[in-house]
Amino acid sequence: MKKVLLIGCNGQMGRVVKAAIQQHPQLELVAGIDRHPGETTTFPIYQELTDVQENIDLVIDFSHHSMTNQVVDYCVSQQLPVVIATTGLSVEIIARIKEAGKEIPIFYSANMSLGVNALIKALQSIAPILEEDFQIEIIEKHHRNKKDAPSGTALLLADSINDVLAHEKDYIHGRTGNENENAMSEIGIHAVRGGSIPGEHTVIFAGEDELIELKHTALSRTIFANGALKAGLFLVVQPAGFYSMNELLSETLV
Amino acid sequence: MKKVLLIGCNGQMGRVVKAAIQQHPQLELVAGIDRHPGETTTFPIYQELTDVQENIDLVIDFSHHSMTNQVVDYCVSQQLPVVIATTGLSVEIIARIKEAGKEIPIFYSANMSLGVNALIKALQSIAPILEEDFQIEIIEKHHRNKKDAPSGTALLLADSINDVLAHEKDYIHGRTGNENENAMSEIGIHAVRGGSIPGEHTVIFAGEDELIELKHTALSRTIFANGALKAGLFLVVQPAGFYSMNELLSETLV
Amino acid sequence: MKKVLLIGCNGQMGRVVKAAIQQHPQLELVAGIDRHPGETTTFPIYQELTDVQENIDLVIDFSHHSMTNQVVDYCVSQQLPVVIATTGLSVEIIARIKEAGKEIPIFYSANMSLGVNALIKALQSIAPILEEDFQIEIIEKHHRNKKDAPSGTALLLADSINDVLAHEKDYIHGRTGNENENAMSEIGIHAVRGGSIPGEHTVIFAGEDELIELKHTALSRTIFANGALKAGLFLVVQPAGFYSMNELLSETLV
Amino acid sequence: MKKVLLIGCNGQMGRVVKAAIQQHPQLELVAGIDRHPGETTTFPIYQELTDVQENIDLVIDFSHHSMTNQVVDYCVSQQLPVVIATTGLSVEIIARIKEAGKEIPIFYSANMSLGVNALIKALQSIAPILEEDFQIEIIEKHHRNKKDAPSGTALLLADSINDVLAHEKDYIHGRTGNENENAMSEIGIHAVRGGSIPGEHTVIFAGEDELIELKHTALSRTIFANGALKAGLFLVVQPAGFYSMNELLSETLV
Repeated sequence: MKKVLLIGCNGQMGRVVKAAIQQHPQLELVAGIDRHPGETTTFPIYQELTDVQENIDLVIDFSHHSMTNQVVDYCVSQQLPVVIATTGLSVEIIARIKEAGKEIPIFYSANMSLGVNALIKALQSIAPILEEDFQIEIIEKHHRNKKDAPSGTALLLADSINDVLAHEKDYIHGRTGNENENAMSEIGIHAVRGGSIPGEHTVIFAGEDELIELKHTALSRTIFANGALKAGLFLVVQPAGFYSMNELLSETLV
Repeated sequence: MKKVLLIGCNGQMGRVVKAAIQQHPQLELVAGIDRHPGETTTFPIYQELTDVQENIDLVIDFSHHSMTNQVVDYCVSQQLPVVIATTGLSVEIIARIKEAGKEIPIFYSANMSLGVNALIKALQSIAPILEEDFQIEIIEKHHRNKKDAPSGTALLLADSINDVLAHEKDYIHGRTGNENENAMSEIGIHAVRGGSIPGEHTVIFAGEDELIELKHTALSRTIFANGALKAGLFLVVQPAGFYSMNELLSETLV
Repeated sequence: MKKVLLIGCNGQMGRVVKAAIQQHPQLELVAGIDRHPGETTTFPIYQELTDVQENIDLVIDFSHHSMTNQVVDYCVSQQLPVVIATTGLSVEIIARIKEAGKEIPIFYSANMSLGVNALIKALQSIAPILEEDFQIEIIEKHHRNKKDAPSGTALLLADSINDVLAHEKDYIHGRTGNENENAMSEIGIHAVRGGSIPGEHTVIFAGEDELIELKHTALSRTIFANGALKAGLFLVVQPAGFYSMNELLSETLV
Repeated sequence: MKKVLLIGCNGQMGRVVKAAIQQHPQLELVAGIDRHPGETTTFPIYQELTDVQENIDLVIDFSHHSMTNQVVDYCVSQQLPVVIATTGLSVEIIARIKEAGKEIPIFYSANMSLGVNALIKALQSIAPILEEDFQIEIIEKHHRNKKDAPSGTALLLADSINDVLAHEKDYIHGRTGNENENAMSEIGIHAVRGGSIPGEHTVIFAGEDELIELKHTALSRTIFANGALKAGLFLVVQPAGFYSMNELLSETLV
């Protein structure tokens, strides 16, 4: 059993991860960090990293990007493998994470779900083949209370496609009027909102008399927790290094 | 066999209708009208309505809305039933068509496909039930060369929903940024463009933990021709009056 | 605040309904019935209906069809409105429920979700129109552990369509081989199983060059709880009678 | 301009290929072979290969698998590159085609559409990653007159997935009853039939709280013609060898 320290354990995602660890046969939750006191638990919750006294094998961070520097410093000083699962990281913080990879095993991915990362792999395997003859459009659907549009994942998908195309495409958000230009140089990104949809992303390649569609549907936040636990189990047996979903998925292929 | 005069017989839709009539067991194409000479045919093509000498049982008009007044005048003077299947008609012309219904059987619908009109019927049967708890979004997909967005049919669907709601909703076209308002007072309409998609319309009702989606897919323009022929066969046995898909679909139910 | 007695309060659905009532502004959960002791609660849980001493305005039954006769007897004797939300009822029990409608307001529906019932309404509004020219197929998707196939809801949808057709269709389950007959006299019903899909039902009307698809997606069991609460609030202001989703949905339309 | 000999030029697919070649800027149709006389054309149509007198750069065969041996013999004797685009080939004939690759450039693929082959590439890129945690199901939809089920393409997709899995899965066709086994060792293949659907294939990977779906939609037979022409243009600049869509798609990636 690997002993886990969970940072941000009382947040919305933290509670989901807590439940996932507690059901996991190979992981044990031995301590949490959170500024907000939560429900009574079977493990101690500290306010500060320096308060932790338990033996730790793995750190999982679902707190907030304002905490990341502090988390990385702590893990480097304690020589602990760490999965950074917060979103909205600046390029500076991502650079800091990669730098820390020289001293500890550290894992970061913009989206922790196995499925979204598999989708990216599939997209990148075919986008160059289809580039010349197919237009690309992305439709994402989320619950009515999601204020930002398009979703970070929709942009991650679009960027992942652009990374492998010969000619980078521009993004457009919605179309109206009578002068819509040829869609060959663009990726249209459409943000649908309603009800309690947890998250759905579809990439459409539309060609002459044929369509290819690749779609990911999230049914709950559990998928991000499960991805983080998979990443953690992968990480505890790795040497120091910077790792992402690419390495985790390639591992599966060996 | 009912003898048909097809107006606009050499246009893009006209040629599809011509082929559909020629395969139809109850209809015979005896004359056409078109300003542009087309391929050699088995029936005469005239430039002017006044040139027609054949006996006619039914007129089908797939020409252009600039012709509609002239077509209506001709049919009233000849006491002929007529299906007006052109699009983009002004409210004045629609009023003229309804007026002509006092003298001849006349049929007009904003979309001639049986399926789109069935979809409208289904939408109107449930929209009032769902109004309180579900948000509404429409996604339409068309080929890359379609310049106007959203499609006329997407607007027809949105208007048909609004017609039966207690509180009319506004339309928005695409979302981007961080301040997207609550979608309860809106219908989001999303125009996807790519490849050679003939036409797809999906209406989404998104509620708390459930979704209802109603979708129409057109595989070719033949559906508009088939709808016009069904309307024509319906019309030739009716007394003078203004008829639309509503009456045609209700007929099916008797 | 209407005082609710919840029968089967510790079952899988019972716990979902309990949470829904506790969040509801117009309903108060004052007592439960269950043979299995559950978690500590803020309301008393009895093993027998005769033990209940609280004042009750409404009974909601999510227990088991073997309990239904007993529940109906109790509600008739106490003159209490009751929502029967169990599944798998025999025709004899359904007859008993309808009979009880002479003495108390009683509600029963084979599927308690508002969305599935709206879908049925939409299907029945268009199936007769499309009967002559369109084939019908149903695809349902559920989680990998669902053992029965097709789902009860898929059969409910198929039966609802057959109820309004001029010529009843047979059901077939999967196709293989080289001699598949014309689908005009059949409804193909396809049961897809995998992962943790909560429940998805799509009815396809396939015609010449056009398709109409009506789809319901359940994201959680909450939708059945919400439907039962809506039914309960509707029921408490009705005179004695047998009521179903049809009456509830029509009410919404007034 | 490359001069093309089209075998099977008056068949259903042959006529589509003929139209595609005649619109192509780099290809010229100089002769056809067909046992059935067709419409008058601008190029000669022969009954036998030995009658052809024109200079030929490329042979495209859309006739029938009973012709394949003869076509291969002819192309070897004339040292002509050939695209074999017929379906239903036996393993013996496929072996003969590969053998011919020692003497001439020869191309064969079980499905000539670029999109279906891109879909296979995408499937094979992710199936091994998802194998442990996701169940696999395939839904295919075709027109009501298609007698065989499932489609050859559905089986091609299933076989392509099995080729890259650690543990091969069995295929099942439809589910009914109360004892459906765990879907982990199976791929469910569902054949939907109705209307005039040209062809739709969806592969579903269903996991814990997430779904990945990869879908191909054919809008007409033109896609098989276009794939054959792409293969032909690729083939005329290759040395002797056996080539398939794999090589054509990899070429696109260089």
